[in-house]
Amino acid sequence: MGSPVTHWSVQTSKPVQYEIRVCENVFDPDNPTVLEDAAGTAGPRRFVVTDRVVDSLYGERIRAYFEHNGVEHQVLVLDDGEEHKSVEAVLRVSEALDAFGVDRRREPVVAVGGGVLMDIVGFAASLYRRSTPFIRIPTTLIGLVDAGVGAKTGVNHNGHKNRLGTYFPADRTLLDRTFLTTLDGRHISNGLAEILKIALIKDARLFDLLEQHGADLLENKLQSPAAGIGPTPADVPVDQRLASRGLHLDPATEVVERAIHGMLEELQPNLWEKVLERVVDYGHTFSPTIEMHALPALLHGEAVSVDMALTTVMAERRGLVSAYQRDRILGVMNLLGLPVWHPLCTPEVLQPALCDTVRHRDGKQRLPLPVGIGSAVFVNDVTESELASAARELALLTTGAAR
Amino acid sequence: MGSPVTHWSVQTSKPVQYEIRVCENVFDPDNPTVLEDAAGTAGPRRFVVTDRVVDSLYGERIRAYFEHNGVEHQVLVLDDGEEHKSVEAVLRVSEALDAFGVDRRREPVVAVGGGVLMDIVGFAASLYRRSTPFIRIPTTLIGLVDAGVGAKTGVNHNGHKNRLGTYFPADRTLLDRTFLTTLDGRHISNGLAEILKIALIKDARLFDLLEQHGADLLENKLQSPAAGIGPTPADVPVDQRLASRGLHLDPATEVVERAIHGMLEELQPNLWEKVLERVVDYGHTFSPTIEMHALPALLHGEAVSVDMALTTVMAERRGLVSAYQRDRILGVMNLLGLPVWHPLCTPEVLQPALCDTVRHRDGKQRLPLPVGIGSAVFVNDVTESELASAARELALLTTGAAR
Ligand SMILES: NC(=O)c1ccc[n+]([C@@H]2O[C@H](COP(=O)([O-])OP(=O)(O)OC[C@H]3O[C@@H](n4cnc5c(N)ncnc54)[C@H](O)[C@@H]3O)[C@@H](O)[C@H]2O)c1
Ligand SMILES: NC(=O)c1ccc[n+]([C@@H]2O[C@H](COP(=O)([O-])OP(=O)(O)OC[C@H]3O[C@@H](n4cnc5c(N)ncnc54)[C@H](O)[C@@H]3O)[C@@H](O)[C@H]2O)c1
Repeated sequence: MGSPVTHWSVQTSKPVQYEIRVCENVFDPDNPTVLEDAAGTAGPRRFVVTDRVVDSLYGERIRAYFEHNGVEHQVLVLDDGEEHKSVEAVLRVSEALDAFGVDRRREPVVAVGGGVLMDIVGFAASLYRRSTPFIRIPTTLIGLVDAGVGAKTGVNHNGHKNRLGTYFPADRTLLDRTFLTTLDGRHISNGLAEILKIALIKDARLFDLLEQHGADLLENKLQSPAAGIGPTPADVPVDQRLASRGLHLDPATEVVERAIHGMLEELQPNLWEKVLERVVDYGHTFSPTIEMHALPALLHGEAVSVDMALTTVMAERRGLVSAYQRDRILGVMNLLGLPVWHPLCTPEVLQPALCDTVRHRDGKQRLPLPVGIGSAVFVNDVTESELASAARELALLTTGAAR
Repeated sequence: MGSPVTHWSVQTSKPVQYEIRVCENVFDPDNPTVLEDAAGTAGPRRFVVTDRVVDSLYGERIRAYFEHNGVEHQVLVLDDGEEHKSVEAVLRVSEALDAFGVDRRREPVVAVGGGVLMDIVGFAASLYRRSTPFIRIPTTLIGLVDAGVGAKTGVNHNGHKNRLGTYFPADRTLLDRTFLTTLDGRHISNGLAEILKIALIKDARLFDLLEQHGADLLENKLQSPAAGIGPTPADVPVDQRLASRGLHLDPATEVVERAIHGMLEELQPNLWEKVLERVVDYGHTFSPTIEMHALPALLHGEAVSVDMALTTVMAERRGLVSAYQRDRILGVMNLLGLPVWHPLCTPEVLQPALCDTVRHRDGKQRLPLPVGIGSAVFVNDVTESELASAARELALLTTGAAR
């Protein structure tokens, strides 16, 4: 009795395809991109979601864009800020879609904003009628190089960050760096932290660029020298252009493109995070706890920077990076306006932080450590005393010599 | 300006695999199935969700099962009924999972109940940390042959049925027909409507079984003659057993297995409903509107039956089924305790219903009509007058001769 006799096994696979495209001045009245649907033909109407800050800066321009093009549209404005990244916001989007009567097959929802806004709208789009296409137009640097390029959506719930969510990439992400001109320096640094992460784990050339041009990039908010966005040679595949070491690209363009390229190389084969050893988790072992404890004092990228500084010191102590490389890394963090230490870097905070991450990584540390600059390795044998010593050394280095 | 220069195209595919297994007396203390995890080893704890009615009937037994096996467990009891299929219920599940501290990789959530309960829990599981495995144990006939075998989850929102949801199949569905012994006859008929649908569009043998044994099946609530569930020959692949025309299966077992088998054959290649011509949509063209207008007078399967009766009459008028076949079909509906007509079958209701369905099927009718018994065809040319005539004829047939 009870032994199973009859069973069916269902096996299939869901193809996923999406596009990320550089698109300068996306709301220039003569730029048709936002109006094109999947087939490239002009779609009938557009439902746009943005946040209060972006609306105050760009709302008029967005509305003028659709009016100029004679396209019926509606702009839903959500509250900005991490504390509004909630189920309520998702339901607001969904109810507004009902009222608009969106045509799922012809009217992709347009999300214009930072990571918070895109995560909310992506989540709503994935649930609405079990999936409704959407377009992302990131307006922050985190949005451009991280939140806008992957597949994750979600909101905070019950006191937990991103507790509810889905994997649902936008059909298209349109990258328009001109939005960064209005972003404050601290949020530029915040995004540069994720770019530095990619540099450290897999792209030495990107690190060199950050080291050489970091201060300028921060100062000029990653705008290219000439126009709002730099001249990029037309019709050369990204792969080739980056392989040619960007000789004909300005640093801002090359930095952003390398960062996105590196991120996508890691995401594409592991979009649903089945594999738990992810180099893009570098800097994300201790940072969730540090960020949570320090809230709202530290932005996400700032906590990631502190985590990377700590693990760089650990790597140096293990002989994986040289002292010279370690100092270059900490130096670049300074250059990019990122913190390299925080009072929360104590064994009392770090050890539980590691335990928490181990729980999320299915019982193993799977801790990425840098190997030289541009490479990484996973370790599972970090002890409490190693952690305490590294934290002590980081405090000495950064409060003493390095800054 | 504005012409896209740089772009990345991300292409990947998500493998999906799940299992549906007959498992008699699933909460027999000696049946280990619910305690096994994906790897087949006993999992540490279990979080169970059920509804009030199922809890009142089986709650004690479920708790005793886990206690007997020394397994830490918690049972969350949700309100039953379509009106509680809401976002609030999903959030209750999610918060309870937080409190339980579920281990996503070792402790699949267990959903025990009908379609409403499984849709809620499946939705919550899909969102919780962007996906948490779950097991379905359907306790209604709709659950066993329909809601429990596909990938759809969801809840009603803002006055719309299943407005928010995901595609997220349970890792395993365990089919235990003994639950049906406590289900009222009307809900048995409700499930038989979906079984009849499969028979009409693709399985003449299933139709014969329903015609021959329908009254018994309803009366005995699809229990097999001997024990709660019939002896099924061990270790014969389902395909072979069904191909051998079920000579050694009792009718209840064969009916349920054929229905599930047919359903899965249609779902597997189209799990995300990319293809809009779905034979399993048979009976679902006019029924959503009829069901909505008649609420709560008609159950879903009852509305589907009325839809199938109407479209059978249409098919006969087009020469796709004979008058004799049409009368057999209407006769089986009677036998199964299903309505074949409803006062809402008027052009005033049916025509807008068709328009609404056309909107959901991307601008085309894609209306499945039966061809003989066991086959179907899609048509796109139904006119208002054809619909009105068919409705009139159905009224005459069913209020006059057929019943
Ligand atoms: N889905 C993913 O893969 C992913 C990846 C990384 C981060 N995230 C999420 O992204 C969020 C952080 O993103 P963020 O840093 O973009 O935060 P954010 O969206 O909160 O934006 C930061 C602030 O800048 C404002 N702003 C946006 N664009 C502006 C502009 N052009 N000029 C001036 N101000 C502007 C916003 O209104 C907000 O007040 C977090 O919730 C994080 O969980 C998601
Ligand atoms: N996800 C899918 O693919 C899919 C497919 C079909 C239907 N559905 C959904 O399923 C729902 C209908 O399912 P349903 O008909 O099972 O309704 P249901 O879940 O509401 O169950 C009907 C009633 O029977 C009670 N009940 C459940 N098991 C019982 C038992 N063994 N004995 C006595 N009473 C019992 C329930 O408490 C409820 O009151 C709808 O919301 C529909 O949208 C989903």
